[in-house]
Amino acid sequence: MPTRGDRANLQDPLAQQLLQSAIPARLAFTGSDGSPRVTPIWFHWDGAALVMSTGAQSSKVKAIERNPRLAVRIDTTEAPYRVLQIRGAATITRHPRATSEYALCATRYFGEELGAAWIRLTGDRPQARIALHPEWVELRDLTSLLVRARTL
Amino acid sequence: MPTRGDRANLQDPLAQQLLQSAIPARLAFTGSDGSPRVTPIWFHWDGAALVMSTGAQSSKVKAIERNPRLAVRIDTTEAPYRVLQIRGAATITRHPRATSEYALCATRYFGEELGAAWIRLTGDRPQARIALHPEWVELRDLTSLLVRARTL
Repeated sequence: MPTRGDRANLQDPLAQQLLQSAIPARLAFTGSDGSPRVTPIWFHWDGAALVMSTGAQSSKVKAIERNPRLAVRIDTTEAPYRVLQIRGAATITRHPRATSEYALCATRYFGEELGAAWIRLTGDRPQARIALHPEWVELRDLTSLLVRARTL
Repeated sequence: MPTRGDRANLQDPLAQQLLQSAIPARLAFTGSDGSPRVTPIWFHWDGAALVMSTGAQSSKVKAIERNPRLAVRIDTTEAPYRVLQIRGAATITRHPRATSEYALCATRYFGEELGAAWIRLTGDRPQARIALHPEWVELRDLTSLLVRARTL
């Protein structure tokens, strides 16, 4: 049984399922004014890092460059809630066009046809690639609590 | 047309729809160690504040007491993405049992029957009531971008 915060939690089948899902990550970072921010964002899990791509001029890129600590949740919107939490530091690189991970996201989130159309529409825009390197990982499955409530 | 950040965005029909939905809020706050955190949490919109209830001993309560700045997204998991963002400061009160807003949440998120069972299971636990008072509100509807991609 992995302990709370253990990176081994990423190997759990439920974690892998969430990492392959089309659920947007909810990314928390510290804004340039020092207050918290949260944004939904596509992610691609490459086996070592959670890769998120965004417009190179996005205010979140400047904020994350200033303070690279991130937290992400990838969780189901409907019960039974299943929740993967990842915390760590980000490295940012800049790219003249959409990253290869962004193209993979477009297919995963939108499907082959619309994903390809999306890349035709947006693929020539400069991007920043935000790679979150997991340091602390927690996985929660609230199914058993829900089952218990149903028996009451 | 409301401007970005305007609290009047809360009156938009799409904002009202998201505020009445059974989508958990994704709540960002600053952890006790100063790094960002994000958690899914039930909310109840009472017309003036976004009310979120949690266990009185939760580590997030202590962190939010230390730094009451919050950001929340209430957004659809599937495209076309519709996203409500609220930022503001929280006030926290403590209660010997589940708050009335938490009971309303149980019904809204789980339905009448399971919601009542959930409150029978958990309703006698002390809670902290976190009320987020909106200062900055943004509403985004990415439908038109998606329609544009579909025509390419």
